Amino acid sequence: MARLNPDRLFPPDLEGRVIARDLYEEIRGLPIISPHGHTDPRWFAEDAPFPDPARLFVTPDHYVFRMLCSQGIPLASLGVPRADGGWTEADGRRIWRLFAANYHLFRGTPSRLWIDQALGDVFGVTQRLSADTADAIHDQVADCLSRPEYRPRALFERFNIETLATTEGALDDLRWHRMIRDSGWAGRVITTYRPDQVVDPDMPGFAEAVEQLGQLAGTDATTWTGYLDAHRRRRLWFKAQGATATDHGHPTARTENLPAAAAAALFDKALSGRCSPDEADAFRGQMLTEMARMSLEDGLVMQIHPGAARNHSAEVLAAFGRDKGFDIPTRTDYVRALRPLLDAVGMRSDLTVIVFTLDETAYSRELAPLAGVYPALRLGPAWWFFDSPEGMLRYRQTTTETAGFYNTVGFNDDTRAFCSIPARHDVARRVDCAFLAGLVTSGRLDGDEAREVARDLAYGLARQAYRL
Amino acid sequence: MARLNPDRLFPPDLEGRVIARDLYEEIRGLPIISPHGHTDPRWFAEDAPFPDPARLFVTPDHYVFRMLCSQGIPLASLGVPRADGGWTEADGRRIWRLFAANYHLFRGTPSRLWIDQALGDVFGVTQRLSADTADAIHDQVADCLSRPEYRPRALFERFNIETLATTEGALDDLRWHRMIRDSGWAGRVITTYRPDQVVDPDMPGFAEAVEQLGQLAGTDATTWTGYLDAHRRRRLWFKAQGATATDHGHPTARTENLPAAAAAALFDKALSGRCSPDEADAFRGQMLTEMARMSLEDGLVMQIHPGAARNHSAEVLAAFGRDKGFDIPTRTDYVRALRPLLDAVGMRSDLTVIVFTLDETAYSRELAPLAGVYPALRLGPAWWFFDSPEGMLRYRQTTTETAGFYNTVGFNDDTRAFCSIPARHDVARRVDCAFLAGLVTSGRLDGDEAREVARDLAYGLARQAYRL
Amino acid sequence: MARLNPDRLFPPDLEGRVIARDLYEEIRGLPIISPHGHTDPRWFAEDAPFPDPARLFVTPDHYVFRMLCSQGIPLASLGVPRADGGWTEADGRRIWRLFAANYHLFRGTPSRLWIDQALGDVFGVTQRLSADTADAIHDQVADCLSRPEYRPRALFERFNIETLATTEGALDDLRWHRMIRDSGWAGRVITTYRPDQVVDPDMPGFAEAVEQLGQLAGTDATTWTGYLDAHRRRRLWFKAQGATATDHGHPTARTENLPAAAAAALFDKALSGRCSPDEADAFRGQMLTEMARMSLEDGLVMQIHPGAARNHSAEVLAAFGRDKGFDIPTRTDYVRALRPLLDAVGMRSDLTVIVFTLDETAYSRELAPLAGVYPALRLGPAWWFFDSPEGMLRYRQTTTETAGFYNTVGFNDDTRAFCSIPARHDVARRVDCAFLAGLVTSGRLDGDEAREVARDLAYGLARQAYRL
Repeated sequence: MARLNPDRLFPPDLEGRVIARDLYEEIRGLPIISPHGHTDPRWFAEDAPFPDPARLFVTPDHYVFRMLCSQGIPLASLGVPRADGGWTEADGRRIWRLFAANYHLFRGTPSRLWIDQALGDVFGVTQRLSADTADAIHDQVADCLSRPEYRPRALFERFNIETLATTEGALDDLRWHRMIRDSGWAGRVITTYRPDQVVDPDMPGFAEAVEQLGQLAGTDATTWTGYLDAHRRRRLWFKAQGATATDHGHPTARTENLPAAAAAALFDKALSGRCSPDEADAFRGQMLTEMARMSLEDGLVMQIHPGAARNHSAEVLAAFGRDKGFDIPTRTDYVRALRPLLDAVGMRSDLTVIVFTLDETAYSRELAPLAGVYPALRLGPAWWFFDSPEGMLRYRQTTTETAGFYNTVGFNDDTRAFCSIPARHDVARRVDCAFLAGLVTSGRLDGDEAREVARDLAYGLARQAYRL
Repeated sequence: MARLNPDRLFPPDLEGRVIARDLYEEIRGLPIISPHGHTDPRWFAEDAPFPDPARLFVTPDHYVFRMLCSQGIPLASLGVPRADGGWTEADGRRIWRLFAANYHLFRGTPSRLWIDQALGDVFGVTQRLSADTADAIHDQVADCLSRPEYRPRALFERFNIETLATTEGALDDLRWHRMIRDSGWAGRVITTYRPDQVVDPDMPGFAEAVEQLGQLAGTDATTWTGYLDAHRRRRLWFKAQGATATDHGHPTARTENLPAAAAAALFDKALSGRCSPDEADAFRGQMLTEMARMSLEDGLVMQIHPGAARNHSAEVLAAFGRDKGFDIPTRTDYVRALRPLLDAVGMRSDLTVIVFTLDETAYSRELAPLAGVYPALRLGPAWWFFDSPEGMLRYRQTTTETAGFYNTVGFNDDTRAFCSIPARHDVARRVDCAFLAGLVTSGRLDGDEAREVARDLAYGLARQAYRL
Repeated sequence: MARLNPDRLFPPDLEGRVIARDLYEEIRGLPIISPHGHTDPRWFAEDAPFPDPARLFVTPDHYVFRMLCSQGIPLASLGVPRADGGWTEADGRRIWRLFAANYHLFRGTPSRLWIDQALGDVFGVTQRLSADTADAIHDQVADCLSRPEYRPRALFERFNIETLATTEGALDDLRWHRMIRDSGWAGRVITTYRPDQVVDPDMPGFAEAVEQLGQLAGTDATTWTGYLDAHRRRRLWFKAQGATATDHGHPTARTENLPAAAAAALFDKALSGRCSPDEADAFRGQMLTEMARMSLEDGLVMQIHPGAARNHSAEVLAAFGRDKGFDIPTRTDYVRALRPLLDAVGMRSDLTVIVFTLDETAYSRELAPLAGVYPALRLGPAWWFFDSPEGMLRYRQTTTETAGFYNTVGFNDDTRAFCSIPARHDVARRVDCAFLAGLVTSGRLDGDEAREVARDLAYGLARQAYRL
């Protein structure tokens, strides 16, 4: 976009647009709460300048390189790091030019919105990215990046971020978080306990990881009770470093609540690498319920992110490794899957379990009805492929009538693209204001209520749900 | 809402709004046909005053107490009756205050619309419900309820209800319906034959219920042919008491058309309590086809309401019993499931089978294509969690293009909240007028046709489909 | 519609309507590319006049007769040809009157739009079809059909069709296509290689068909390698006759990539009629991957149309045969199903595999994510039941944000109703312009980009994807 439209994403009718504008004016200045994401804490620990534009906008952003890949542009020519040692483009300007020349592919996508806004608002770019403008914009961004006001901490402050959560594995030493705290810098960057690696028997090196967990926790994690105890201790240590939440990324939403002896036997089988695929899924499911019980003890908020078929292309996995844009959503059941966990702890109102989905059909059919009745359950925002204007609108249209607004938890950006954070929150705020304006113009909500809800969606709910 | 917006739920664009207004003006005064619901016939038999506001608006309405429960408000504090003998709040004013103080939870939900309109139109309330206004509104509603013009029959007449169908089990003695008819009151309150209890081998007391069915029907229902005959007789008796329809609430949409010997063997197994879960499902499925065949004989319209996972929380089931807001929709197949029934009787145009769904994905993929070709099949309106402005709009958007309007059957409120009936029909009429206005403004329908369709959706189709 | 609304299908808001109008003005005159459909090549070979109005609009159009059937009008009374030798109406005027008297059933359906526009634009009809106008419109259309300018070739030219693809079975002799080419007429009517009959072991006469394939190809098709070679040769022969694509209509999207020996063994089993249903499905799946590999050799574009449960009513199948409006969409998985094919050839950017769906839930969850990353994969337009204004709008809303526009392939009409082709393309163009206008008014796309995308969706993408 040459210039960002100040009314973007607002309703097309004048009455709705005016109301959406007013709502947005009330909340646009609210601080950003980013309670779930994947930025690198090292950035804020070291506060070193970001490298060149391509390494900021293209190489780390799977939304960007997957779209280019879909049109036959090799991942290697975009500088995506390889697992197989083959060639990958190292020249940032060449990568940038390739990206710019194909920027039309992003028409109609949220990446386009985020990148336009980041280039415009953060770097002052006023031209539309294209082959013609590639070099000029590259140089302008590169020039910015060399300046102190574009260092990570300065941007964090400029972005008005109140809290930013990163995500670390259970075995992580959290050195960067400690370095941030020791530095005396006032920015609040916290971690999240992500134990997939020590909870999923299908992960390579599971047994070793469990052993290491025990060492880090100072307990023998090779027995079922010791293993649970190691999690308990490790969670407390993460909490002491600032964490308020855990996160769990599983292939399905399956939960189990097995008798202790059966759970212990399954753990032994997992540790010895003899689990069938179904048993591995059962073990992961058992651990979700165990984690929920631990959350009742230590107060950490629990997040469940199920339903991605990871690394769909064997060829790309072999050449480039995991997380290279080849994760595809799958049909996900929640009604049967969550029942064991909900039967165990779902009626507890001192517990918060936030569930996300990659299967939009579950919004109205399963997740809103579940979150609309169980005190422990909250519905996470539109996630990943659905973290987009149309996706967020469908989310509100299909969840609000059954779950209301107050069983949802505000917005998460879930991103590793730091410069896109303000744009992502801005898109979410605008879409929510547009949705609320529609409720007002159609006589479903009063104006003063819409203003209150807008603030809650933009700020209050995330802060409350994540106990920040 | 302080005051109800007269244009509520109409399109935001001026042209569409004006057309919707005109369509609505044509139909707003049409009598209400309520061909499927769960009001209590005793109200109209005895015509006693309704008790206090909480017992009218909160305690019996699972939409209301499930939302409050989801935010940690115990069901017992809302006066929901217990199955386990524990304490439940008896003070209506305390329940009402709790409800009022949490009324913000309903923002954006259809409950909010229905309750605002019922309070406003039926009770003359002009303030928005909140902690501040709780007592004043309580007193205003309570005062109304003590007056003769707020008795059930008076409200029935004021609501302009032409026909109201309730739902009774096959073993019900229909005493209240007989009392209504004997009273000489002109209001038409009819029953519906709901045989789940004597059709579902998984229901507790199935064999006893079948035996009792036989006694009531004057035949030995413990043989397959006797059992079918008992249904035939019982249906005719319900019909003689006014019923024009049957209703079937099954976990799935499965139908079967087994050879008589196999069906008889399955019945024997069911009666002796030896059915596997799959056999029980097959038996229920067989009975749907049997009921369809009986409908060809006696002319009763058949309704199938499949797909709810009932009583999802074991804890709540134990404490409060069935139907306490913990019923959750599930993914439902219709294409394979309905085939046996449709192969048997689907091409008969003298049969009407109305199918509902809790799985919106089936609207465009399965139900509209099936209802758009089989003469016997009609599509029920948006149901339960989807009986809402957004839900009804999605229903029209996803079914009309394949099934048209004339394979649908108008609106049902399916409610036990009597005072919400006018509001529910009003919401449905407004949403349909808005949808039709959109067809007119986008050049897909002429204005005179839209007026005719609006009348059909509000009145004619329900009357015709339910043979009223 | 008495008169077609020139702004039909455009957005209701003035700003959006003006933009949509401008976009549409730019593209309304573009030639029609119809790269997938089922018109009869004999029409263009012989250029004989079309018969009466009923045989043009009613009898061959399953959208039309299925809707009439759903309201109890017997297929036989509509002149639908019978398989069982029973009576079928032969009087075109009687059929037409029955259709006209029930034209209200089509309110809100795309058939209504297509027929109104075909009657108006092609035949100059200015009245709305109804019982009252039936005879006058019949006579007007019949009169036109007797005139030279309503012969197939003249209409083809008047419709501004640049390329029209028909679909023929692998055993077809393509005589009509050869006759068209030999005639010297400049209209481009090409064929498409559709091998279902010689690929699906569940088709009656499979072994005989394979043998015949071998004879036509001049090779022994009864061995696995010979069979593959026969396909190769037959594909090349179709290509030599003008084909640029193949088409595959399977019950599921399953693909397989078996070792050669296992594939050969499965083929032997298929040929001897001993395949289980699952093995037949596996064989079809194997053949999709084989066809994809052959496409890499000969450059034919591959189309996969999965997910229809064909001939749902056994009664109608027996009386009227296949394809009589009783095909119903089913839930379809793509993520697991396409993986073997994609693992084999999905990263090849010199291959184009176009996938369609009858399960809209797969748009955002599976197909847009897959097409948005695999270079070989493209997403076909909204198909069949979803080839409608609402269906096409949902298609754009749920696929664009993840797959963009450039992983889609423009529009196909997929029709056998020749006179509806301009109307169908017009509806698609209008809906796309409306969608693009929404992106512009909401600040998501610049006006010059929208114009470029509009041309691509209307013309460029189909031409490029189908290599025309």
